[in-house]
Amino acid sequence: MKIKTTLCTALLLPFVTIAAPKNIIYMIGDGMGPAYTTAYRYYMDNPETKVVDPTVFDSMLKGMAHTYPDDHTYVTDSAAGATALATGTKSYNGAIAVDTQKHDLTTMLEIAKHLGKTTALVATSQINHATPASFAAHNESRRNYDEIANDYIDNKIDGKLAVDLMLGGGTKYFIRKDRNIVNEFKEAGYVYADDFNKLNDIKSLPALGLFAEVAFPSAIDANPNRLEKMTTKALSLLDKQNEKGFFIMIEGSQIDWCGHANDVACAMHEMHDFANAITVAKRYVDNNPDTLLVITADHSTGGLTLGANGEYKWLTDVVRGVKASAVTITEALLKTDDIAKTWTAYSDISLSKEDLAALETAKKESDKALNKAIKNIINTASFTGWTTGGHTAVDVQVFAHGNSAMDFVGSQNNTAIADKLIGYIKQ
Amino acid sequence: MKIKTTLCTALLLPFVTIAAPKNIIYMIGDGMGPAYTTAYRYYMDNPETKVVDPTVFDSMLKGMAHTYPDDHTYVTDSAAGATALATGTKSYNGAIAVDTQKHDLTTMLEIAKHLGKTTALVATSQINHATPASFAAHNESRRNYDEIANDYIDNKIDGKLAVDLMLGGGTKYFIRKDRNIVNEFKEAGYVYADDFNKLNDIKSLPALGLFAEVAFPSAIDANPNRLEKMTTKALSLLDKQNEKGFFIMIEGSQIDWCGHANDVACAMHEMHDFANAITVAKRYVDNNPDTLLVITADHSTGGLTLGANGEYKWLTDVVRGVKASAVTITEALLKTDDIAKTWTAYSDISLSKEDLAALETAKKESDKALNKAIKNIINTASFTGWTTGGHTAVDVQVFAHGNSAMDFVGSQNNTAIADKLIGYIKQ
Repeated sequence: MKIKTTLCTALLLPFVTIAAPKNIIYMIGDGMGPAYTTAYRYYMDNPETKVVDPTVFDSMLKGMAHTYPDDHTYVTDSAAGATALATGTKSYNGAIAVDTQKHDLTTMLEIAKHLGKTTALVATSQINHATPASFAAHNESRRNYDEIANDYIDNKIDGKLAVDLMLGGGTKYFIRKDRNIVNEFKEAGYVYADDFNKLNDIKSLPALGLFAEVAFPSAIDANPNRLEKMTTKALSLLDKQNEKGFFIMIEGSQIDWCGHANDVACAMHEMHDFANAITVAKRYVDNNPDTLLVITADHSTGGLTLGANGEYKWLTDVVRGVKASAVTITEALLKTDDIAKTWTAYSDISLSKEDLAALETAKKESDKALNKAIKNIINTASFTGWTTGGHTAVDVQVFAHGNSAMDFVGSQNNTAIADKLIGYIKQ
Repeated sequence: MKIKTTLCTALLLPFVTIAAPKNIIYMIGDGMGPAYTTAYRYYMDNPETKVVDPTVFDSMLKGMAHTYPDDHTYVTDSAAGATALATGTKSYNGAIAVDTQKHDLTTMLEIAKHLGKTTALVATSQINHATPASFAAHNESRRNYDEIANDYIDNKIDGKLAVDLMLGGGTKYFIRKDRNIVNEFKEAGYVYADDFNKLNDIKSLPALGLFAEVAFPSAIDANPNRLEKMTTKALSLLDKQNEKGFFIMIEGSQIDWCGHANDVACAMHEMHDFANAITVAKRYVDNNPDTLLVITADHSTGGLTLGANGEYKWLTDVVRGVKASAVTITEALLKTDDIAKTWTAYSDISLSKEDLAALETAKKESDKALNKAIKNIINTASFTGWTTGGHTAVDVQVFAHGNSAMDFVGSQNNTAIADKLIGYIKQ
């Protein structure tokens, strides 16, 4: 194959030069380590059939990426991870597109805008959360949400606003007593929407859609397809809108949050919304060969494992039988006088006497203890393992489809993904 | 790139046909999931330098593989995993190259032998352990060690013994009261060696080397480079020995065992021996372009995570500071009257009063409790997480180098790896 490639290049160079992709769709599954994409395949598997069907991820796997931040702790947070993926430079945990000296780093979205492309950010978190923020803002700390929101209107590229389309949550940060950024966007000519049911009323760019005070609810609790719907809308707005093409970053923001909570059913519903959004993007690439789709993660979260406590099985029917997030189940059990009865509305797991006693005891102790007891029952019953409420350092996968996708084959640093994308944008 | 490939194929087909690899080196890291190869990179990293150097694994990553057995538990054991990797057919946990009906499955080693290639198996476990066994024996249960050892001499291919070279452990199974298989191999013309220090006395094929009663000791405790040395010896014996080429399977058997024990230092030393063996094999491929090197794992073990308990760090200096396996440290602490003093000979971790008390209490309780307490101190101090004493279902990586290596790009079933290799062998 090596021989073939060499001969190929030798034979082709005289005749062909392949143009870099005009449009780039960059999708980031926050916290989506290898255990999550594997879990999703088996979660979606029909136990009635012998074959395990591959997922949309399986159809596009190209390589893996090293996620360590700019120190020797090896475990990154989402800010340092997104900064590396957006700028090609590793930084410290908490950094929003600034280096270890807290100097601004140029992001690929800013380069795309400078070169006349249309730019967009989509997330299910507040749009000023660490991952999207690292593409269009600069701050020494991810926690400075108001300052980051300000940056979205103050950070000008050649006198223009950096981002032409933003879809996500965050009215709390954009409409404040001290400053109403939404009004400033309107004055700058942006279409504004805040009702997710009226997403399709957005018919032109530039536009800002803020559909939650902070973040969307978990996909398992409401709007299970909100990322898929925003992806469809965003690509329809960007399609053929600019002859110089577009750059869009779409984040599956809450895979990570379910991981932090060690809530496996919550995580699988977020994976499903992200996978459906990827299917929409993949279809766009199939219809637009001048487009490159790259999907990766910033890190893995929670130390998820499929199989635990010495048992050689992971019971997907148990996971599929959970109907709400642990947060929602907790609220319901706090309200009820009949835990056993209320439980059946949220899970197919038949409670043992010990399970019921554990829930009763935890309910008396605290909301947090009850939430923990609920997840303990689900994780134990499904043989799902977790090692942390934080992140882990395992390499993440890199998926690519379309123009230049094969450039992502192999093991690479997360900064190398950014370097390649910036290279295409500059061509 | 798609365009390039298409044009390439179109342009090349008239001129070139690429020959399949003549020699195949198949290396299996038992239990080596993505967290192990990631951990090994950081374990080998020099904290004094800013750059994190890539490993030999990083230089060859091509894709990932789905490891589920032939049921919907999704978590495989090493027997079903090796059967899939050796035959291209999934089976039940415990199966040694037999299908779910317990009928024999033809292995790639048997096909290679039938087609006149030289065949070899190398492992750091007993050579009749599940992984090597699934290439040259057939049994309904991996536990039937004596029957599997018998198969190595009884299982004839066209009247010839199936395996020309075996290097590993297992005299206990080959020299028995009821049957002395070693003598039978000698009568069949095999050179026999049982002293690892005289490995180089093996100067011709066929040969059998059994260097332990059962398995080699852990690499962290003795012979840290035994797999590297056996790989060097095996390739020197196979090199240009047969114009039809060779098939060799080399297993890093004990990565899995350290994982089962949740002993991270033990696992890193096994990874180091396996990585050094891979470097030897890679060099052979670089000097012999008609050779393909494929490396994968049968599954991941222990639910290893880098980072645990909410902390965003994995402390490699702590892991590097552990000088022996937990088994060896347990034996030493059982013998001593001064745990604190003896501990310093085996680990750089400075014991807190609580740690020391935990060891003292555990020592009084049982050997097992002491072993567990030792690992708890190491895992807690290094922020290493584990979720099980068994296996997990996460996809494993596929590495390839040399002729046809690019055929392994992407996400694939573990059986597809076998199907491709069998395809090359049959060409």
